[in-house]
Amino acid sequence: MDPTTPQEACFEAGIKFGTLYHQFAGTPVSPTSSASLETAIEEAIENQPFCASVTVDILDDALAAELDGQSADYTELTGRFMDVEMDIDYEGCRVRASMAMDGDYPRMRVDSVES
Amino acid sequence: MDPTTPQEACFEAGIKFGTLYHQFAGTPVSPTSSASLETAIEEAIENQPFCASVTVDILDDALAAELDGQSADYTELTGRFMDVEMDIDYEGCRVRASMAMDGDYPRMRVDSVES
Amino acid sequence: MDPTTPQEACFEAGIKFGTLYHQFAGTPVSPTSSASLETAIEEAIENQPFCASVTVDILDDALAAELDGQSADYTELTGRFMDVEMDIDYEGCRVRASMAMDGDYPRMRVDSVES
Amino acid sequence: MDPTTPQEACFEAGIKFGTLYHQFAGTPVSPTSSASLETAIEEAIENQPFCASVTVDILDDALAAELDGQSADYTELTGRFMDVEMDIDYEGCRVRASMAMDGDYPRMRVDSVES
Repeated sequence: MDPTTPQEACFEAGIKFGTLYHQFAGTPVSPTSSASLETAIEEAIENQPFCASVTVDILDDALAAELDGQSADYTELTGRFMDVEMDIDYEGCRVRASMAMDGDYPRMRVDSVES
Repeated sequence: MDPTTPQEACFEAGIKFGTLYHQFAGTPVSPTSSASLETAIEEAIENQPFCASVTVDILDDALAAELDGQSADYTELTGRFMDVEMDIDYEGCRVRASMAMDGDYPRMRVDSVES
Repeated sequence: MDPTTPQEACFEAGIKFGTLYHQFAGTPVSPTSSASLETAIEEAIENQPFCASVTVDILDDALAAELDGQSADYTELTGRFMDVEMDIDYEGCRVRASMAMDGDYPRMRVDSVES
Repeated sequence: MDPTTPQEACFEAGIKFGTLYHQFAGTPVSPTSSASLETAIEEAIENQPFCASVTVDILDDALAAELDGQSADYTELTGRFMDVEMDIDYEGCRVRASMAMDGDYPRMRVDSVES
């Protein structure tokens, strides 16, 4: 069957999460550069169609703990180091989605769908 | 409202498309390396949860036309140079999605949803 | 033969340029998000060893011209849309390097080496 | 001072290493997909100017050990999971360079320079 509008809205939300993660995973990051990276990720993804807002929280405590146990004073951005929330507005349908650690896996999920 | 299973399945499809595009966009590519890149992209994305199959077709004619008009003998992978089809199988729901050029924009879309 | 210190310094400069380009190429960008992306790229790359400073100039005029001729109101970052300058300081050796368009190719080059 | 040919050759080697790492870091990878990814990385980077050969060895034992301790059956490619060797041939100067783990850090280094 053809997709419904809410299904297409959820597809759009997924695109933005995959984009966000795989565009920026691997970026050299430290507590001194995390604030500018948060802003740049938010504004980059908000360029994409139907993306009403993105909030990225790079977890400076998790970063600091990582740096404490290694030789270099920066690391690579990955799911363990950020929480993300996003609102998609697609043809009158509003999708909230988020990413956070679920045990050892960075879980992306749809939190709510309102048509 | 909480998402339905088909909505979550569409979200998963979107994640894979965003991943595929933004992990591999920018890869140096030419007609001699496009076959290995197709296979690697397919197998990389098929690692992700709920991804039943991925087919990537790098458009060698479009690549050749691009190289014909420029000084370097390779270019960077972008949406103009590939078609993608994908099957997602999420908790009994099957989603078909694809990416192809729509005018000048690489359009990702849900083609069908079967629960 | 083993590399000299200035040769290693140039290798380090090259690493930073390859990192910068291929980490951020493909990022969705528009004139409204280019300033935050410039800052984030600079601060990300300055995390890497021996990188004294990075200056990224995203070319808003080139971006605007690109958007003027297409359907979407953002594009993907690529070499045509940025100039980069970098200083590497490696064991007493200073390397200046830069990236700018050379015809249709984003040329990365070593501008000077001072030991 | 202007760079010498061997210094420029080392810069070119560095570009290829930064490209390789940051284009492909984050790619979903498992022991079943590592062979196609090795080939695609090698052929992608060999497209770049002055790159005579690239050999990528994705470390299946290290991958298997990582998967053994986590919930998902794939992980993201990063420096811990690959060794790389590269030959650059730039205006008669041959540079050998490699990447391997040095303690907890993926160290890229120039192994030899022959003019």
